[in-house]
Amino acid sequence: MIHPGELVQLVSPKGKRYLTTVDPERDFHTHDGRLSLEELCQKDFGETVSTHLGREYTIFKPTLYDLLKKIERRTQIIYPKDIGYILIKLGIRPGSTVLEAGSGSGSLTMALAWYVGTEGRVHSFEKRAEFYELCAKNLTRIGLSGQVVQYCQDIEGGFGITDMDAAFIDVRTPWDYLDQLAEAVRNGSPVGFLLPTTNQVSALLNGLGSAPFSDVEVLEILVRHYKPVSDRLRPDDRMVAHTGYLVFARCQK
Amino acid sequence: MIHPGELVQLVSPKGKRYLTTVDPERDFHTHDGRLSLEELCQKDFGETVSTHLGREYTIFKPTLYDLLKKIERRTQIIYPKDIGYILIKLGIRPGSTVLEAGSGSGSLTMALAWYVGTEGRVHSFEKRAEFYELCAKNLTRIGLSGQVVQYCQDIEGGFGITDMDAAFIDVRTPWDYLDQLAEAVRNGSPVGFLLPTTNQVSALLNGLGSAPFSDVEVLEILVRHYKPVSDRLRPDDRMVAHTGYLVFARCQK
Amino acid sequence: MIHPGELVQLVSPKGKRYLTTVDPERDFHTHDGRLSLEELCQKDFGETVSTHLGREYTIFKPTLYDLLKKIERRTQIIYPKDIGYILIKLGIRPGSTVLEAGSGSGSLTMALAWYVGTEGRVHSFEKRAEFYELCAKNLTRIGLSGQVVQYCQDIEGGFGITDMDAAFIDVRTPWDYLDQLAEAVRNGSPVGFLLPTTNQVSALLNGLGSAPFSDVEVLEILVRHYKPVSDRLRPDDRMVAHTGYLVFARCQK
Amino acid sequence: MIHPGELVQLVSPKGKRYLTTVDPERDFHTHDGRLSLEELCQKDFGETVSTHLGREYTIFKPTLYDLLKKIERRTQIIYPKDIGYILIKLGIRPGSTVLEAGSGSGSLTMALAWYVGTEGRVHSFEKRAEFYELCAKNLTRIGLSGQVVQYCQDIEGGFGITDMDAAFIDVRTPWDYLDQLAEAVRNGSPVGFLLPTTNQVSALLNGLGSAPFSDVEVLEILVRHYKPVSDRLRPDDRMVAHTGYLVFARCQK
Repeated sequence: MIHPGELVQLVSPKGKRYLTTVDPERDFHTHDGRLSLEELCQKDFGETVSTHLGREYTIFKPTLYDLLKKIERRTQIIYPKDIGYILIKLGIRPGSTVLEAGSGSGSLTMALAWYVGTEGRVHSFEKRAEFYELCAKNLTRIGLSGQVVQYCQDIEGGFGITDMDAAFIDVRTPWDYLDQLAEAVRNGSPVGFLLPTTNQVSALLNGLGSAPFSDVEVLEILVRHYKPVSDRLRPDDRMVAHTGYLVFARCQK
Repeated sequence: MIHPGELVQLVSPKGKRYLTTVDPERDFHTHDGRLSLEELCQKDFGETVSTHLGREYTIFKPTLYDLLKKIERRTQIIYPKDIGYILIKLGIRPGSTVLEAGSGSGSLTMALAWYVGTEGRVHSFEKRAEFYELCAKNLTRIGLSGQVVQYCQDIEGGFGITDMDAAFIDVRTPWDYLDQLAEAVRNGSPVGFLLPTTNQVSALLNGLGSAPFSDVEVLEILVRHYKPVSDRLRPDDRMVAHTGYLVFARCQK
Repeated sequence: MIHPGELVQLVSPKGKRYLTTVDPERDFHTHDGRLSLEELCQKDFGETVSTHLGREYTIFKPTLYDLLKKIERRTQIIYPKDIGYILIKLGIRPGSTVLEAGSGSGSLTMALAWYVGTEGRVHSFEKRAEFYELCAKNLTRIGLSGQVVQYCQDIEGGFGITDMDAAFIDVRTPWDYLDQLAEAVRNGSPVGFLLPTTNQVSALLNGLGSAPFSDVEVLEILVRHYKPVSDRLRPDDRMVAHTGYLVFARCQK
Repeated sequence: MIHPGELVQLVSPKGKRYLTTVDPERDFHTHDGRLSLEELCQKDFGETVSTHLGREYTIFKPTLYDLLKKIERRTQIIYPKDIGYILIKLGIRPGSTVLEAGSGSGSLTMALAWYVGTEGRVHSFEKRAEFYELCAKNLTRIGLSGQVVQYCQDIEGGFGITDMDAAFIDVRTPWDYLDQLAEAVRNGSPVGFLLPTTNQVSALLNGLGSAPFSDVEVLEILVRHYKPVSDRLRPDDRMVAHTGYLVFARCQK
């Protein structure tokens, strides 16, 4: 049975997705009519509920992917294709302590919090109050704020924390903070960066060359979707061609 | 300080990588000469040790990526680029119980075990004894066998387990096991498949159409590496162009 | 000086492109106001003309690329990225005689006619009168109809021509016409096919296996555009992910 | 019948390709034994000849693609995937006069000469005598030297020719020659560049910004081959991931 207060994903007959927290005293409004959230509490995941216009909506427990697709955003977010790879390259695991800068809308923050679990901790830095609050709101909504320590501060003066297991830096000029970064992580730790332009990648590579980092790797990830039709299988006509370049290195003090 | 029994990654001056378990009573042989593992126990991660020929090797704590690159393999393995996406799409998290078939060399098994943590459980099925044992060996080496229940059995008669949070199927004819799969997972659960050919994708899409699954997605992931040179930034000349197509769906009984 | 009757490309200050035939007695209407085509006749290519609202439009002589982008279309057209490769694989050159089926809107017809020149000939088949006429109209507009013989007929009964140097087949079920194709081309000639789905590629490969063809190749071509900004160089956010699969073979009777 | 002096492509039972000029007085040596070129003169394209060990080789008339694959090279050559697109963007056609710098091994020179035909002309500049001669040798071998005027000279002092219909520049620092280039082509003409690194693309974009050029486009082309197997259709495991970035512009004096 689905519980009041639980976060659920509702999928319309046409595949449109909604994310909502079950509040038995409220209705949920869709393009296909009204859904009673009270009725939802008598259902299990995988079952359907009807709108007052008789359209069947399927109820799913949201995966991390579903959550990432639906966070409220006011910045360019980091995509699942990149997040998955980042997790593995940084060696994130239940219990890890991870540094993040900047939080942005919180998509990577959410994923890091998800995987470090209740034993781990994400330290997330964001200079702009607007995004700091948006990130906090998104984390609270999905119940992950307990795993995250948020900081609304500039990182030029350093992070004020040490011994991080790993770090990910998503700011415009990461080469300005490499010494601060090296201080914050354990020796040997993996660190990652996301940069939209080739000029930034060049500048970062240049910076890493004279900072305590080694083992540098640059890459990009492309996802190509197909129309899921058995007898007319073909790629979608268009795809996302670029989100950003990923750079990874190891701290070597 | 690095402990005896710990798994470490050693990186040569030319970037060659080795994975080894620290046994203070043994030496480690590289292309650059012999390393004393006893000496290693007086070092920390991020530091270097010298071979008897004077070459400096850096010691890193292996991330999941490093481990996946170095597992002993006798099958086509699942790549980090695919694994990262699979984790997010399947909603794997600390505490999840996940079904996997077949284990193969155990690369995905390892990643699932890594992320479900000590509270979670991976149930991994493999029909061929040879791969069942290889997977066991790889899991033991990296200390993750406690999170995995391995089964050396054919899945045609079903899995004999239920209420799995998610499942990933990497067998040649997954369309033959869709009913068994639906029995094993909770209603609404995400499931995934990896298939090398377009013909298999078509056959699976056809099978999913008449089985208790919905919300089907087909995609492929490409990783493109760049030469990490600041003033001559460019992609590598060649890349891995194909590992397999990923298919995701939701069980809807 | 630009001549009356000449086809010109006009590029707006924002990069919007127009193709028009210079008729000194008419005006040309743009989003930025009216252009006098009479005034255009006192200009050379590379120069600009002003609309009555004072916006500067640059006049270029259209390249084949410009023409292909602007043909009137009522079908999926073949893209420049694919056409360029087709030309080279088929060995098209000034003087070649080439078979094409079906004409569609005429984008490939136009490119073939362009390259075979006045000494060559394109024989283009199209079963639907609507597209036959559209193709004729597009060829006439750009002055290439002299190099093309158009046929409005079904190809099941054969092409009724022989000794073609090369052939390109863009129909839904090309495997139904392989014998007819083999009759129409010289022995050893290169032939090509465009197919949107993997199922069609499989069916064609199957058909080629029992028809007089060898040396089969399957591929797809992707073009990725970049934002042309010197200090913020990066790929466009989105790209065309699929037009079709290209299949090439040699006739071997 | 195949003529003495004709250039032919021979394809082995395993798909290995050879390019040779038919000299009836010589034998041709393959991995499968000796072929009599005299016997070849009694055959037609599409037919086979036997080596003295009884292996059947098929005889094809080489397409431009076949020739490009087999030219003698001592430089990075321009690939068919890029050449096809260059031709269309530059508006090359029978009768065009085109400027090229530098010639390199002559792969693009060959393709330009092929398409401008006997009425057109390619002016190709190469500063290094070694490549100038290699290009000449490659052009002579395939019978296209009549359409090409070669220059062994530095281009810093200008090209010494004017009114070119189009130009393609494949040198390390093209931004150093933009004024010379603008003098050599007609106003409004399309020009193209090939550059391996993102730093060079940035430098060129910067240069074009203050030179008489407009309508700038940057792109790259990727070709992905598939295993041509009907019931196990899938991409090749590896692919060429990068040859170079293409930059196109229009001269606007």
